[in-house]
Amino acid sequence: MAEQIEFDQAHQALQEITESLEIGRFVHVRRQLQDMEPEDIAHLLEASPRKSREVLWQLTDPEDYGEILDELTEDVKDSLVSKMAPEVLAEATEGMETDDVAYVLRSLPDDVSREVLSQMDTTERLLVETALSYPEGSAGSIMSTDFITIRGDVDVDVVLRYLRIKGELPEATDALYVIDTENRLIGELPITTLLTTQPDIPIAEVMEDAKEAIDVNMIDSDVASLFERRNWVSAPIIDQERKLVGRITIDDVVDVIREDAEHSMMSLAGMDDDEDTFAPVVKSARKRSIWLAANVLAALAAASVSNMFEATLEQMAAIAVLMTIVPSMGGVAGNQTVALVIRGLALGHIGDSNKRELLMKEALIGVLNGIMWALIIGGIVVAWKGNWLLGGIISAAMLTNLVVAGIAGVSIPILLKKMNIDPALAGGMALTTVTDVIGLTVFLGLATLLI
Amino acid sequence: MAEQIEFDQAHQALQEITESLEIGRFVHVRRQLQDMEPEDIAHLLEASPRKSREVLWQLTDPEDYGEILDELTEDVKDSLVSKMAPEVLAEATEGMETDDVAYVLRSLPDDVSREVLSQMDTTERLLVETALSYPEGSAGSIMSTDFITIRGDVDVDVVLRYLRIKGELPEATDALYVIDTENRLIGELPITTLLTTQPDIPIAEVMEDAKEAIDVNMIDSDVASLFERRNWVSAPIIDQERKLVGRITIDDVVDVIREDAEHSMMSLAGMDDDEDTFAPVVKSARKRSIWLAANVLAALAAASVSNMFEATLEQMAAIAVLMTIVPSMGGVAGNQTVALVIRGLALGHIGDSNKRELLMKEALIGVLNGIMWALIIGGIVVAWKGNWLLGGIISAAMLTNLVVAGIAGVSIPILLKKMNIDPALAGGMALTTVTDVIGLTVFLGLATLLI
Repeated sequence: MAEQIEFDQAHQALQEITESLEIGRFVHVRRQLQDMEPEDIAHLLEASPRKSREVLWQLTDPEDYGEILDELTEDVKDSLVSKMAPEVLAEATEGMETDDVAYVLRSLPDDVSREVLSQMDTTERLLVETALSYPEGSAGSIMSTDFITIRGDVDVDVVLRYLRIKGELPEATDALYVIDTENRLIGELPITTLLTTQPDIPIAEVMEDAKEAIDVNMIDSDVASLFERRNWVSAPIIDQERKLVGRITIDDVVDVIREDAEHSMMSLAGMDDDEDTFAPVVKSARKRSIWLAANVLAALAAASVSNMFEATLEQMAAIAVLMTIVPSMGGVAGNQTVALVIRGLALGHIGDSNKRELLMKEALIGVLNGIMWALIIGGIVVAWKGNWLLGGIISAAMLTNLVVAGIAGVSIPILLKKMNIDPALAGGMALTTVTDVIGLTVFLGLATLLI
Repeated sequence: MAEQIEFDQAHQALQEITESLEIGRFVHVRRQLQDMEPEDIAHLLEASPRKSREVLWQLTDPEDYGEILDELTEDVKDSLVSKMAPEVLAEATEGMETDDVAYVLRSLPDDVSREVLSQMDTTERLLVETALSYPEGSAGSIMSTDFITIRGDVDVDVVLRYLRIKGELPEATDALYVIDTENRLIGELPITTLLTTQPDIPIAEVMEDAKEAIDVNMIDSDVASLFERRNWVSAPIIDQERKLVGRITIDDVVDVIREDAEHSMMSLAGMDDDEDTFAPVVKSARKRSIWLAANVLAALAAASVSNMFEATLEQMAAIAVLMTIVPSMGGVAGNQTVALVIRGLALGHIGDSNKRELLMKEALIGVLNGIMWALIIGGIVVAWKGNWLLGGIISAAMLTNLVVAGIAGVSIPILLKKMNIDPALAGGMALTTVTDVIGLTVFLGLATLLI
């Protein structure tokens, strides 16, 4: 359990540092921070309430700023960067990879970002400006321009000597790229091949085809899914003319995978996936209010349905008591389907060829569970209220609503995706509105007709 | 947009294959499958309804079975493996990595798994049995035993010659492991160092400390979080005596990250994260029913609250019409907080040192949004129903419930975690029950007292 201890230590470090800050032992904290890896400081900052976060940032060695910023999530990064002077920021970006600098600059206001750029030396600035020219969320925006190219007509031995002179390879280098005179990518040479091949063999004989090179405009989620399927560690990036323009490494891909997966979960609950756990209260309240506003409309839609049946409700209060059960069950069942479909859409498992089967399957599950819960709830209502008719009405409404939930659970996310609306963001709320309205309409409608 | 095309082609391939299956062009499909990479066949199987999936599996070259099985999610894998003869399965596992074989065997019934093991040759069987001896979800269960060890007292040149004789390196090898005579890990030699160092330098001089080696019992999510923070491609695994027992590579870590992130999203909706998109209807219906059963209890709890106020409901039907609004808003606001806290707990950002701040922050957000929505909803009710008292009552209930939602949204997941119950699984349901019951009690209670 050695590593479990390591993790407990990390939590303990946080506790200790928090306590030291409270009693003002700043020198002590500064020393502790110096002993920590930048990525661990980043973790500490994410886990710190806002006030301690700012103090910790002041106590951190500015030399680590760049690496730490790169590890932080958007909102936390923004909160720190917004208070830094452009020249400090420019200094912090020295030694960072170009794509990481671009990532940090992207979230700054335009004038600050321009100010920071103007403080860099020309080569660096040109590289960063190129990185910034690719749209956010494209392969170009997460690639680095740090890679090693070789020519196909030399021997392994020449490459080995070249690398020894070079002395250091870019991070996560697992292959060298073979290019022609026009800078077009023609192959890849895994460095393991370099190690296991006799020195006198020409590169062209041992290199691998680079047939699956990634286009610079590919969407980052698609890049991640390719990496995941192919088990890549890094991959070359080419432009429309097959010219080699960059390289994406697995660590950036892991960030994309993590963000995409978190996005679905947070969006379903109506949250921003960048949201800082310790964001300022007013800012959070405002952001979340948008989602509550959408729900007010949904809740008012449901209330309007009940309002149409006010006379029935007046006649028999038991109906009012029971009327929340059917919408509630429909919402839960429908959201199960929505979660399944959102995951399937994200993984590319659902398309035109199989959506019909999926709809049938989820509708059938609705029928099966509908029958079961219609009987159970019907039985409970008969036992509780001693009214067979009311039991029958709630059973019929339950069965209908669970089938509707299955059908809507498949259709709504697929339709939203077709309309280019993020299904994770709007799917759950739209589904709940449908199951609320249908559930109430059927239950109260039948009650009005039959009682 | 070269790669967008590649992806569209993948979807088109699925469509084509589905159509070919429908009209019985099996030979054609078999040929298409032969041209595909195992991981792409796995993707095709995941995206196929059950009937076509079985046919596709029959048409796939059995030589690819092992690699395909390794890429499939649990439920899909189970559905295929359950119909394979043990000897076919034993053959399929040849050439797979040990951890992957163990992963496949773990999901089989004990007798089938024993049967498959008995068909393997002795060396292979022993390796797989060792892998199976580590508990699921531990570092040991995802590590491979395929790695290269060297001694610290030799020169770089000796290692280079050794590797050339060996001819091939295990997948994703980015470092060789330096061990002592007792097989204890003393260092790592990145293969990039091997390429950039002069041949006559001893290994001990250029190797890196392996101070952060992972213990074989570490939980896989913690392994993933270390990989993510340290940007590792692979890492050595040691036992309690620091003896080197295995190696974990980034591709297995990516699977863990993906599964963990999906787990939160699917669990919040009451779904199993292994659930096959095209699972059999009866099996799915049964699995989901458990969650619906939990919700029945929650819905009945809410109905019992309304039942206590039946007299009030009888008196004024408008109260029944409006009574769903307050619980609905509380549930949505509370689930925002729950999502934030579950993510924070999963990332290790929330602990004893900062939970008080978090509680304060979320309660304050509840106050701010509570005031805002109390005014808006109160206003709407006054305008709609022309009843100032009813407007005041719903406002008071709304404010109370949004503050409760913030407090419960923080407390419930943290308490569940303390009780060793998965907060992602039970958090949302528990929260909704609290906000339903409190929301109804305050609204109907005030109405009973004041009207």
